[in-house]
Amino acid sequence: MNRPRIFRLLLVALLFSTLELSAQTLADRLGYPAGTKLIIVHADDLGETHAVNAAAMKALQLGTINSASLMVPCPWFPEMADYAKAHPDADFGLHLTLTSERVYYRWGPVASADKVPSLVDENGYFHHDWEPGEHINPKEVELELRAQIARALAMGVRPTHLDSHQYRLIMNGKELFDVMLRVAHEYKLPVFVNRDWFAAYPYLEASLGPGDIILDHTVTIEPEVPPEKWAEFYLTALKNLKPGVTEFVIHPGYDDEELRAATRERPSWGAAWRQRDFDFFTSDQFREILAQQKIQLITWRELVRAAAAK
Amino acid sequence: MNRPRIFRLLLVALLFSTLELSAQTLADRLGYPAGTKLIIVHADDLGETHAVNAAAMKALQLGTINSASLMVPCPWFPEMADYAKAHPDADFGLHLTLTSERVYYRWGPVASADKVPSLVDENGYFHHDWEPGEHINPKEVELELRAQIARALAMGVRPTHLDSHQYRLIMNGKELFDVMLRVAHEYKLPVFVNRDWFAAYPYLEASLGPGDIILDHTVTIEPEVPPEKWAEFYLTALKNLKPGVTEFVIHPGYDDEELRAATRERPSWGAAWRQRDFDFFTSDQFREILAQQKIQLITWRELVRAAAAK
Repeated sequence: MNRPRIFRLLLVALLFSTLELSAQTLADRLGYPAGTKLIIVHADDLGETHAVNAAAMKALQLGTINSASLMVPCPWFPEMADYAKAHPDADFGLHLTLTSERVYYRWGPVASADKVPSLVDENGYFHHDWEPGEHINPKEVELELRAQIARALAMGVRPTHLDSHQYRLIMNGKELFDVMLRVAHEYKLPVFVNRDWFAAYPYLEASLGPGDIILDHTVTIEPEVPPEKWAEFYLTALKNLKPGVTEFVIHPGYDDEELRAATRERPSWGAAWRQRDFDFFTSDQFREILAQQKIQLITWRELVRAAAAK
Repeated sequence: MNRPRIFRLLLVALLFSTLELSAQTLADRLGYPAGTKLIIVHADDLGETHAVNAAAMKALQLGTINSASLMVPCPWFPEMADYAKAHPDADFGLHLTLTSERVYYRWGPVASADKVPSLVDENGYFHHDWEPGEHINPKEVELELRAQIARALAMGVRPTHLDSHQYRLIMNGKELFDVMLRVAHEYKLPVFVNRDWFAAYPYLEASLGPGDIILDHTVTIEPEVPPEKWAEFYLTALKNLKPGVTEFVIHPGYDDEELRAATRERPSWGAAWRQRDFDFFTSDQFREILAQQKIQLITWRELVRAAAAK
């Protein structure tokens, strides 16, 4: 056996071990048996409207939605802060919010508007959307994130994680992601990221360190799924679930007057959409497929505890 | 006839003419026949919740509620701004707002929070209430009022009048009233005041000038009236209505999930209260008593036009 051949074999072995390592799931690293399938059933947008709060509180009580995050700048945040204080074991993160995406119902920053001019429109609300080329000042983002966290803490919320409303802080470049990550590290909070995003947004992986919790996968429904295929979409995702920790990012809400009025300019993530999410994730069908597929529920609180114990 | 007696007679005559003048109603001065009874049926708090907006829009369409004012800092203000633009003849004022009086649902200033520190609590919302001795800085009040008017104008609202949420700017001393009046004069807008308040708040009369529109009376229901006496209270008020211009300050809304949740900490001005107001002022009973008592509806728009024509 000549040296070059040995080197080539070693190289191949090394390559495999690297692949092996990167294929190792968060669940493996947290000590779950190989192949364990864990999901966080995570409700987004709490605090935005009462219809979303009420549906989330009901689903949390039923137990099949086990995690959620709160929009601090929104007018119904105090209702959720009150609930969080009364339910200190609930798994609530902060849904860091930099947009006010609806038309008839809007909100603005927690920081003083004159301190975050790049984040607000001419009427003082967060931008409805970020136009291409919109300059969002990362220093102002940091100020606003800190203001949101400070208000939540002052109002008695003890968040278990941070995530980003409309993924603005995830999918808009390294600079904004790094702001979020820096603030998260300072507060010793995990940020919701998963490996599936690394190919499209390589700066995520570049910025994250060995101390960060990285989920394996995300499942979230998109406007392309027609209403009558809602349950089928989720059932298929659950049947095909890969091992590791998957966050189901869902948007439960009640299809009532308030939510219909607040979201009436477009059906995506609207009132009927949110009712469908509520209906599926509180259904017997959902409970049954979890049992059938041996899928376990896990929360951010448990992930953090397990990661700290390692 | 000696001189002193003549002087005394003159004095008595002068006194009577003054009394006559002060008893002259706004309606008289606007050229309505003596004894005319005019009412503005004015819905407060539009913009605060969707349930209030929806009820007001319905009642305005039915025609028996003919005037309203909008809370610019509130999250549902954009819905009313949109409606106001689509209904340019509607009689909308601005309900200048300096408090956020509920518990589970809150809002803050339009001006940058750091510019109006005396108006906000430790979480950046308007104070829930003004405690006795709370120092409310008039300069900050002025800044905030200007910010509210500027946002309303920028969003296409053309207000016909200004009034004050919870009467904060009316009943908290001359300094705050003068701020409101100064801003109102600058924008050439009338301020809702009426003669009935002058005895308790003499600075109102002292600050108002001959160019100001001063209503004659106000009718508003109070928590002392039990729910089953609601219609009776209003019917009695309408039967005993005095000549002149009376504003019925009412709070219509729909007793639905949103409003029940937003107002659940106390029944006063709560969801059921607002439903009762909606029900009475859109009832046949209300229409009939107006006809029976020969009471005419008038709006701020008409008052301003009539006053300008004088």
